[in-house]
Amino acid sequence: MTHHFGPHFLQIPGPSAIPDRVLRAISMPIIDHRGPEFAELAQTVLGGIRRIFGTEHPVLIFPGSGTGAWESAVVNTLSEGDRVLMVETGHFASQWRRLTEKWGVVTDFIPGDWRNWADPEAIHEKLTADTHHQIKAVMVVHNETSTGVASPIKAIREAIDDASHPALLMVDAISSLGSLPYEHDAWRVDVAVTCSQKGLMLPPGLAFVALSSRAIEQSKSGGMRRSYWDWSEMIEFNRTGFFPYTPATNLLYGLRESIAMIEEEGMTNVFARHDRLAAATRAAVQAWGLEVLCANEQAHSSVLTAVMMPDGHDADALRHYVLENFNLALGQGLSHLKGKIFRIGHLGQCNELVLLATLSGIEMGLSGLGIPHQRGGVHAAMDILKRRA
Amino acid sequence: MTHHFGPHFLQIPGPSAIPDRVLRAISMPIIDHRGPEFAELAQTVLGGIRRIFGTEHPVLIFPGSGTGAWESAVVNTLSEGDRVLMVETGHFASQWRRLTEKWGVVTDFIPGDWRNWADPEAIHEKLTADTHHQIKAVMVVHNETSTGVASPIKAIREAIDDASHPALLMVDAISSLGSLPYEHDAWRVDVAVTCSQKGLMLPPGLAFVALSSRAIEQSKSGGMRRSYWDWSEMIEFNRTGFFPYTPATNLLYGLRESIAMIEEEGMTNVFARHDRLAAATRAAVQAWGLEVLCANEQAHSSVLTAVMMPDGHDADALRHYVLENFNLALGQGLSHLKGKIFRIGHLGQCNELVLLATLSGIEMGLSGLGIPHQRGGVHAAMDILKRRA
Amino acid sequence: MTHHFGPHFLQIPGPSAIPDRVLRAISMPIIDHRGPEFAELAQTVLGGIRRIFGTEHPVLIFPGSGTGAWESAVVNTLSEGDRVLMVETGHFASQWRRLTEKWGVVTDFIPGDWRNWADPEAIHEKLTADTHHQIKAVMVVHNETSTGVASPIKAIREAIDDASHPALLMVDAISSLGSLPYEHDAWRVDVAVTCSQKGLMLPPGLAFVALSSRAIEQSKSGGMRRSYWDWSEMIEFNRTGFFPYTPATNLLYGLRESIAMIEEEGMTNVFARHDRLAAATRAAVQAWGLEVLCANEQAHSSVLTAVMMPDGHDADALRHYVLENFNLALGQGLSHLKGKIFRIGHLGQCNELVLLATLSGIEMGLSGLGIPHQRGGVHAAMDILKRRA
Amino acid sequence: MTHHFGPHFLQIPGPSAIPDRVLRAISMPIIDHRGPEFAELAQTVLGGIRRIFGTEHPVLIFPGSGTGAWESAVVNTLSEGDRVLMVETGHFASQWRRLTEKWGVVTDFIPGDWRNWADPEAIHEKLTADTHHQIKAVMVVHNETSTGVASPIKAIREAIDDASHPALLMVDAISSLGSLPYEHDAWRVDVAVTCSQKGLMLPPGLAFVALSSRAIEQSKSGGMRRSYWDWSEMIEFNRTGFFPYTPATNLLYGLRESIAMIEEEGMTNVFARHDRLAAATRAAVQAWGLEVLCANEQAHSSVLTAVMMPDGHDADALRHYVLENFNLALGQGLSHLKGKIFRIGHLGQCNELVLLATLSGIEMGLSGLGIPHQRGGVHAAMDILKRRA
Repeated sequence: MTHHFGPHFLQIPGPSAIPDRVLRAISMPIIDHRGPEFAELAQTVLGGIRRIFGTEHPVLIFPGSGTGAWESAVVNTLSEGDRVLMVETGHFASQWRRLTEKWGVVTDFIPGDWRNWADPEAIHEKLTADTHHQIKAVMVVHNETSTGVASPIKAIREAIDDASHPALLMVDAISSLGSLPYEHDAWRVDVAVTCSQKGLMLPPGLAFVALSSRAIEQSKSGGMRRSYWDWSEMIEFNRTGFFPYTPATNLLYGLRESIAMIEEEGMTNVFARHDRLAAATRAAVQAWGLEVLCANEQAHSSVLTAVMMPDGHDADALRHYVLENFNLALGQGLSHLKGKIFRIGHLGQCNELVLLATLSGIEMGLSGLGIPHQRGGVHAAMDILKRRA
Repeated sequence: MTHHFGPHFLQIPGPSAIPDRVLRAISMPIIDHRGPEFAELAQTVLGGIRRIFGTEHPVLIFPGSGTGAWESAVVNTLSEGDRVLMVETGHFASQWRRLTEKWGVVTDFIPGDWRNWADPEAIHEKLTADTHHQIKAVMVVHNETSTGVASPIKAIREAIDDASHPALLMVDAISSLGSLPYEHDAWRVDVAVTCSQKGLMLPPGLAFVALSSRAIEQSKSGGMRRSYWDWSEMIEFNRTGFFPYTPATNLLYGLRESIAMIEEEGMTNVFARHDRLAAATRAAVQAWGLEVLCANEQAHSSVLTAVMMPDGHDADALRHYVLENFNLALGQGLSHLKGKIFRIGHLGQCNELVLLATLSGIEMGLSGLGIPHQRGGVHAAMDILKRRA
Repeated sequence: MTHHFGPHFLQIPGPSAIPDRVLRAISMPIIDHRGPEFAELAQTVLGGIRRIFGTEHPVLIFPGSGTGAWESAVVNTLSEGDRVLMVETGHFASQWRRLTEKWGVVTDFIPGDWRNWADPEAIHEKLTADTHHQIKAVMVVHNETSTGVASPIKAIREAIDDASHPALLMVDAISSLGSLPYEHDAWRVDVAVTCSQKGLMLPPGLAFVALSSRAIEQSKSGGMRRSYWDWSEMIEFNRTGFFPYTPATNLLYGLRESIAMIEEEGMTNVFARHDRLAAATRAAVQAWGLEVLCANEQAHSSVLTAVMMPDGHDADALRHYVLENFNLALGQGLSHLKGKIFRIGHLGQCNELVLLATLSGIEMGLSGLGIPHQRGGVHAAMDILKRRA
Repeated sequence: MTHHFGPHFLQIPGPSAIPDRVLRAISMPIIDHRGPEFAELAQTVLGGIRRIFGTEHPVLIFPGSGTGAWESAVVNTLSEGDRVLMVETGHFASQWRRLTEKWGVVTDFIPGDWRNWADPEAIHEKLTADTHHQIKAVMVVHNETSTGVASPIKAIREAIDDASHPALLMVDAISSLGSLPYEHDAWRVDVAVTCSQKGLMLPPGLAFVALSSRAIEQSKSGGMRRSYWDWSEMIEFNRTGFFPYTPATNLLYGLRESIAMIEEEGMTNVFARHDRLAAATRAAVQAWGLEVLCANEQAHSSVLTAVMMPDGHDADALRHYVLENFNLALGQGLSHLKGKIFRIGHLGQCNELVLLATLSGIEMGLSGLGIPHQRGGVHAAMDILKRRA
C-alpha cells in the first residue's frame, strides 16, 4: 500500500523542511576552520544570529543538538543543590527539568495540564514567596513544541521584576526563534537556547546559547564541572572568529544562507506569515469539529498546532495512514499524549500551499479511517489564507 | 504584494518539477565523454530509454530541445515536396506542421477545434483516398500539451493498417512519454520524439528520437541535407556507447536517475498515478462549475488539464495572481487560447498533496479575483484521491 | 589494477572541470521559462555573455552542442553552392568543413600540417585572387582544440580588409572564448560560435552564436531551409527575455554563475592565468625532451598543449595508464593523430596545483611505461609557476 | 597578491576534503527522525560504523565534535578523584588530559617530547608499579594529529595484560579511524572515540564512541553527573534505530555514503593507500633536506606528516604563502610547535595526484620564500608513487 512517491511533506514541528538554497550551501566543499576564510564566515554568522536573537551580547554556537544547549545553560550558571523554578508546559519542559535534576539542581516545578502557558502570575507568586532568594533561575519554554502552546516571556520578565527577584531568566527558544517574535535584550533574558532545525531551517547539528552580562558574570564564578559546553573559551575564541574545537563548518554555511533568507523576507514578515498559517490551521481544526490542544486563546503557537483525536481513535494510526498514503509526516503525541494528539508543523519555509496540502492530507486521512469529523477544514483554511491577497 | 516565499509549485505541463535525486545527480562532476566510464553511463541510459519507449530499436539522444527532435524526425525521413498528413490537435501540432513546412514538405492538415483528439477515422479516410500513396507520413501529437487532449496512437496505427497505406507513422510523444502508456514497437510507430523535461522529470536539454527499421531504412536513402540532427552517425557511434559530438553528460547522469526512479515505482504504477491525479483535477474543475477544454471524454489527458475561463475573465490575470500570492505557476493558454484557458500540469513527480496544493491555490485565486465559480473543487478532488487508500 | 579513488583530474581540453559553484547552481529547482523570474535570468545571462564575447550585438543561446552552433552559422548565412574559404588547422577545422559541405557549400580549404595556425597572408592571397568575390565567407577556428594551435583572428580580419573583400568573417571560438582574448566587435567578426563546456566551465548543452549587423542582414535574405538553428525568431524572442522553444534553464543558472566567476576574477586575470599555465606546461614538455605539436612559437594555445609521443610509443597507452593508475584523464589524438599525441587541457578553473598534479601524473606515466624522456618536467613547470608569487 | 582561483587543496589533517558523493548525500531533504525511513538509515549506519571500528559492541553517534566524544568517554566511566594514566604524545593528548582534569580526574601523564609514540614499556612499568590498582584507565591517542606520530595500541593492550592490570583501555581514534588499521574487539579496547571529519570524510558534527562490555558495565554504576553525553539512553534508543534527542540526520546520510565508499574500496586498500601516500611524503621531505617531526621510524603516521622548519624560518609564513599563492591549506603547528612545523594531511580521499599537487605547492613555497632546501621533493615522491602501477 505504501508508495511514497513525489515530494515528501515533512510537517512535523521540527526538523522543518530545509530550503533548497540552504541544502546547496551546506554541500559546498569544506575549508580550514583555522584559516582566514573561515574567520569571515564565523563573523558573518555570529553577527547574524545576534540580530535574529535581538541581542548585542554573545551568542554561542556549539556542534550539538538543542539538548546540549539546555545542558550548557544549566552547567554554566547553576551549582549542585541550587534551586530553580520551572513550569510544566509539556513534554519538553519536563525533559529540561529532568536534565536539570540530573545535574543535582533542585527544581520547583509549577504543575500544568499541558494545555496552557507558563503563567506569569504563578511565577510572580512563587518568587514573591521566595523571600530568601533561594531560587537561582526561572527556566521557561517559550514555545512548547509538544503542545503548541507559547508562553509570554515578556510578561514573565515583568513578573520577575515586579517581585524584585534576582533570579536569572532562562528561556528555551528552541522552536520559537526565527518563527515567533523574540527579543533577547529588550526582554532582558539571561540565557536563551535554540537549535538549528526549527525556525532557522537548517539540518540538526547546531546548538545556540544567547547570553546576558549577568549570565556571563555568574558563569565565571559559578556553574559546575564542564568542558564541552563551557562558555568561557567559546566567548574567548569567537572574538577573532574561531572556535575552541572543530565547528560544524558546513552547517555554518547553511546558517549564513538561512539568516540571509530570513532577513531578505524581513523578520516581521516571517512572523506574520507564521501567524497567518497558524490561524488557518486552527480554522481547519475547528471546521473539522476537532479540538486544538492549547486551551488558552492567547497562547496559541504560530509554530505548530496540536490536535486532539476524538476519543477511541488513535492519532498514530492517522499519522501512519497519511505517511503511507500521502507522503505526509505529522508530529506524534509525546509522553502521555502519545496516540491522543497529532502535531502539525507550519514553521520555517512553510507557505500557504504547503499548509493546504498538509490539511488536505489530514482531511483525507480522517475520512479514510472513518474518524468522526465534519468536512470543510481545507475550505476554512483557504478562507483565511486567501484574504491576504 | 509579491512574496514568493517557501517551496515553489511549478504546475505547468513541463518543464515539470525535478526530483531531488535527479538534481543531485546532474550536479556530479563531469567526466570525459570519450572515456570508459562514460561508455558505461551511455549504455545504461540508452538501454533504459528503450525500455521506457517500449522498443528494441535505437533511441537517439541529442543535446537539444523537443523542437530539435521534431526537426530530426522530418529531415531524416522526408524530402522537399513530400506530402504528409497531420492533424490540428492544438498549438504544438500546428508548430510541428509549421516546422515541417519550413523544410519544404507539403502538409495536409486535418482541421480541428483544439478540443478533440486526432480522429483515427478521419485519418483512415484521408489515407484511403490517397490511392497513389503520395502521403509519406502520418504525423500525430500523442498528447497535445497545449490543450490536454490525448490521441489514440494505437487506433491510428490500425487506421493506417486498415487503409493498407505505406505512410510512416511519426508521433510526438513529447509530453506523453513516461506519463501515458506508450508502446513504440507494439504500436509499430516509425519515429517518435520526446524531450527530457516532461515525464522524464529532467531539466530541458535532451531531445530523443525513437526509430523503427523502416524509418532507419528510409533515412539512409532519403531525407534532406542535415548534419546535427542526422541519425546515421549517431546510430553508429552509440553502438559502442559514444556520440559523434559532445553529449550533455550531466543531463545523462540525471536521465540514469530518472529512469531508475520510474522503474522503481513501476511504469504501470506511474501511469495509474497520472490517471488518478487527472481524474481528481477534472472533478475539481467540474465542482467549480468550470469547463475542461477537452471535449471528448475518451481523450482527456492524464498529463495536464486545460481549464476554460468564464467569459470576460482573463486566465493570465489568474495565473499572475496565484504566482504572486501563492508561489504557484500554472501554464498559459497558447496562441488563440491565450487568456482563455489555463493549464494545470500534474505530471512527473506530482503526487496527491502537490495536486491538492495546486487546486487550493486555484480555488483561492478564483475567489480572490471574483471569478464566478462554486466552491468545492478541492473537496471533489479529495473525494477521488482518498479512495485509493 | 584500476583504482579510481579520490578526486578525478579531468584535464582534457573540454569538457573542462566544472567549478563547485556552477554545479550547485545547475542543481537548483527549475522555473517556468515563460515566467517573470526566467526573463530576469535570461536578461542577465544574455547581457553577460555579450560582455564575454566583447560585443553589443546579439549573442544567441541554443540548447545544443558546439556542432549545432557551427550548423547555425552556416545555414543562416550561406546558400547551396556558395563558396567559402577555410583553413586546415586540424581536426575541428576539418569537421567544420565537412559539416559545411554537407549543406552543399563549396569549400576552398587551405591545406595545413595541423601544426600551424591559419596564416593571414595565405588568406589575403586567396581573397585577392578572388576578384569576383565569389567567396562568401572566411571561416576560421580560433583555437584548434585538436592541436593546441591558436590562430590570429585580428590579423585575419586585417587581411580581409587589406584585400577589400566583402566576405563574412566567421570564427569558431569554441575552445577559446573565456580562455583567450577574443574581441568580437573590435575585430569585426561577423559570426562567432562557442559552447558551454570549455572556458565557460559549464556542462555541455549550450551552443552560442555571436552575430554582427552584416551577418544578421545577410541571414534575413539568405541562408538555407532551417528551423531549430534559425536566428530570426531567437533574436525576436530574446528581446523580452524569452526563447522560441524551451531553453535549457538549469544550464542557464550555471551560466549566470560562471559569468559571475569570470568577472570576479577579471577577464584579464583569467587570460593571464591561462598563459602562465600554458607556459609552464610547455616548459615541462621541453624538459622531458618531448615535442609540442604546435610548430609556430607565436601560435601556442594557452588552452591546451598537444604533446607528440616518441616514435614507436602509443599515446593512448599512456592515456590509459594514467587514467587507470592516477585517475587522470588526458585528451586523445584525433583523426590521423590518434595514438601519436596526447592533449593536456589547462583551461577553465585550472590552477597551478591542478596543473602540477597533471604533469606529475604524466611524468609518472612516462616513467612507468618506459617511454624515453628526461626527468624534470614538473620541476621546470614549477620554475615558471613559482615566479609569479 | 591573493587569487584563490580554482580548486582548493585542503591538505590539513582534518577536516579532510569531502568526496562529492558525500556532499551530495548530505544535501538531500531531511526526514522525520522518528519515522520508519529514519530507523532504516540509523540501522544501516550503526551497523556500518561497527564494521569500520571492528566491533560487535555498540558504537554511539552523538551530534557534536570529537571533543565531545572525549568528554563522553570520561564522564561515563570515571569518577571525581579517580586516577588515570595518560601519555604526552602531543597537543591533543595534552588537551584530552586537560579535559579529563576539568572533570576532577587525577592524571598521571607520562612525559614526552612530541616526537615519539606512547611507549608500551613505559605504560607497563607504570601499571606494574600500581600494585593497588588505583589507575582506573589507560588513555592513549592512537594517531597524534598534532605531530604525525602513531602509537601501537595492540602493544599497549598487551602491556596492560602483561601487567595483569584491570585498567580500562581508552583510545582516541579521532584521526586514525578509517585511515589506519584499528581493531576494537581484537585489541580489546574498552572505549574508543572518533569524529566525522577525518578518515570518515564527512563534515564535522558527529562524535562517535565505541564501547566494550566492561566499559558499559562500569558506566552503569560509575561515571559522573551527565546528560547529553550519557551512554545508557543512547544504547537503549539505538536498539530500535532511534536516538534520545534529535540526531544530525543529514550528516548520517553522508555517513551512509562514506561507509559505502570505504567498503567499496576495501579497508585494506584504504590503509595501503594511506601508507603509500605517507611514504611518498616522507621521501619528499627527506629530499628537501628537511626533517620529519616524528623521530621514531616505527611510529610514522600514514594520516599526516609534520615537517620541521629550518631554524629561523616561520612555518606559518610558508602556510600563508602557499594559501595565498597556490590555494593550498596546510596544517599549522599547535601549542609550542606553532611556527616551527607545518603539517601535511594525506588522509581521507587523498590520492596520488592530490598529494603531488600538495608537495609541488610546498616546494614552490620553500623556493619562493627562500627557505633553505634542496629541490627534488616532488621527484622523490613520484618515485615512490609510480612504483605501484
